[in-house]
Amino acid sequence: MAALPEGFSCGAAAGGIREEGRLDVGVLFSELPCASAGVYTRNAVKAAPLLVTREAIEGSDVRAVVTNSGNANAATGERGIADARRMQEVAAEALGVGAGEVAVASTGVVGEYLPMERVERGIMRACEALGRGGAGFARAILTTDTRTKGCVARCEVSGRDVEVWGVAKGSGMIHPNMGTMLAFLATDAAVEKKYLQELLREATRRTFNRVTVDGDTSPNDMAIALANGTAGNVPVAKDSPDHPAFAAAVEGVMRHLAREIARDGEGATKLIEVSVEGARDEESAAALARAVAGSNLVKAAVFGEDANWGRVIVAMGYSGAPFDPGRVEIRFGDVVVFSGGEPAAYDEAEAGAALSGEEVRISARLDEGDGSAEAWGCDLTHGYVEINGSYRT
Amino acid sequence: MAALPEGFSCGAAAGGIREEGRLDVGVLFSELPCASAGVYTRNAVKAAPLLVTREAIEGSDVRAVVTNSGNANAATGERGIADARRMQEVAAEALGVGAGEVAVASTGVVGEYLPMERVERGIMRACEALGRGGAGFARAILTTDTRTKGCVARCEVSGRDVEVWGVAKGSGMIHPNMGTMLAFLATDAAVEKKYLQELLREATRRTFNRVTVDGDTSPNDMAIALANGTAGNVPVAKDSPDHPAFAAAVEGVMRHLAREIARDGEGATKLIEVSVEGARDEESAAALARAVAGSNLVKAAVFGEDANWGRVIVAMGYSGAPFDPGRVEIRFGDVVVFSGGEPAAYDEAEAGAALSGEEVRISARLDEGDGSAEAWGCDLTHGYVEINGSYRT
Repeated sequence: MAALPEGFSCGAAAGGIREEGRLDVGVLFSELPCASAGVYTRNAVKAAPLLVTREAIEGSDVRAVVTNSGNANAATGERGIADARRMQEVAAEALGVGAGEVAVASTGVVGEYLPMERVERGIMRACEALGRGGAGFARAILTTDTRTKGCVARCEVSGRDVEVWGVAKGSGMIHPNMGTMLAFLATDAAVEKKYLQELLREATRRTFNRVTVDGDTSPNDMAIALANGTAGNVPVAKDSPDHPAFAAAVEGVMRHLAREIARDGEGATKLIEVSVEGARDEESAAALARAVAGSNLVKAAVFGEDANWGRVIVAMGYSGAPFDPGRVEIRFGDVVVFSGGEPAAYDEAEAGAALSGEEVRISARLDEGDGSAEAWGCDLTHGYVEINGSYRT
Repeated sequence: MAALPEGFSCGAAAGGIREEGRLDVGVLFSELPCASAGVYTRNAVKAAPLLVTREAIEGSDVRAVVTNSGNANAATGERGIADARRMQEVAAEALGVGAGEVAVASTGVVGEYLPMERVERGIMRACEALGRGGAGFARAILTTDTRTKGCVARCEVSGRDVEVWGVAKGSGMIHPNMGTMLAFLATDAAVEKKYLQELLREATRRTFNRVTVDGDTSPNDMAIALANGTAGNVPVAKDSPDHPAFAAAVEGVMRHLAREIARDGEGATKLIEVSVEGARDEESAAALARAVAGSNLVKAAVFGEDANWGRVIVAMGYSGAPFDPGRVEIRFGDVVVFSGGEPAAYDEAEAGAALSGEEVRISARLDEGDGSAEAWGCDLTHGYVEINGSYRT
């Protein structure tokens, strides 16, 4: 896990929210005020911390994030809102900023109240542990994830070197719709606020919103970006010459995190990367790619390393995107398995071999237009059933 | 399995299509011409037999159905169409009717050509074995199903006793959209053709289209109804006084079959029945019920008998139906677990006990209007992963 950009620090603590001795409270903090942006779940049920955070970012700007894992503080009514606000206040006091400058994010079991005494103690300890390393914070947001997810990209804006740092957690209830489970980006670049929001939304559409683990969209999905301007560059905006390089850095970090979320899906043994080209438009291509990546039958076949391409064309068929099945080519890795509406002549062993690695690539070429998209998922395994048959207990 | 209505007969044979010695070819036949109706998958990829059948029913009327299991004849291009037509011709010749009077249905692996020599021999044998018992036919349409599904309803129309008989198969790739995997209804009532089509479509919407096993909509989904008029009643039509009783009999048979399909979903150990009331309208209620019944996380929790109601409210939230989460009550069996936007005070052991039987009932009451609907699904188990990790091999 790379160190944070200039002017940012992180802390984590074991609050005992669900298990003793496990890092479950995190704080991310910028010494300077930030431009900030957020994208959030489209689930009609929105978790309390998400509502509190959205209010803060839309109201002015946040420069800190306080997180907990083990409890999502979702479907918890008025008491949940009060608890999220209390998290904001406790962190703000410890960091010496206003409560409205703190975003709140929670992840874990839905439908239980937060154990606030433990949460508050955890926040105070995390604030005492602030430093430039991000490893503890990246660990403290995990639930059933098996590893931390983070990376950093560097680029030059108006002659200054800047960094874009990001961490995320995923694992289950992953089928993001305008935001993903939890992702946090921090950059020392100066960035115009409105532009940061557009950039985050647009990149989310092409990265986090193209991941699916189980088709279940969480009420806690949230991605937040903080830009503190420590690098001293001319603020990046939509029409600035730095836009392409900076946007590529941001989207690069988010794409990395999206792939890592899919790879570490609950019970997963394989990352599935689906790419579609030649669709009517990008939206159609994304619908096709997501349907394939999200099909339980495709996912189970990949787990079994069974080159059952019939399930791929079937999933495309119910994606809702218009296309002519008679003009589709499907490949597993480099092996063409379906072409022109009919089974291709291929070697079963070669097709099976294309599914044997830890990364499986399924691609479809249509003849409808020039829309293309990628989506990422993972295989459906006994581990998923095991984890989710007994998550709360 | 009840005997067929007057004037109908069935036959089955072991054609060796996928396995030796297993019944895999079936024929259903009416001595008299029938009024006929069909509903079909909305998957953009439509299997060859479905296209051939739709043409026959829309063209005039069918009085026979020929089926095979072990191979879906889907994604097989022009050759698939020719094979489906050949099945029609072989059955028509053996039964002494026109080829256009025969519907064709196939189920099994997608993307392989039919072994036509075996299929043809099987059809001829099945036609030689015609009789009034339906058990062999009901067995011959199964794939990974563990048991046959069928029932009969009786009612009186214009002073005559009539029967409505139905069989179905389900198991995997079950998320029907305008038709379900395969279902066949036969009645000795005289029924007006246009009315029969409307009745089948409307009842499908409330029965087969409310079942989900894995969210995958098959390209072979099809339900067909045949009415041969042997009972000598005044033909039932939309405005006839017999409509309510006859429609109830048809929908009753289809509802039974829908529940049996869910109960026997691949790997399933439990039937999940979700009922929603107080939604804005029936469509919203159905969307909510289907989202809950289809959630991998809800399904895995039911498998583990874990009363994780948070996953129920979350699934409702991403269903796309509008509602206020603060005015929802959720029950597992009779135990209220969520009420007024907050966790209810309930006994965890009681809530878990509500999940311990072979039929699990999850109900949600909203405060948006008077729309209600039911949906049926099954738990997600290791068996599902096992079956679908190695289905072709």
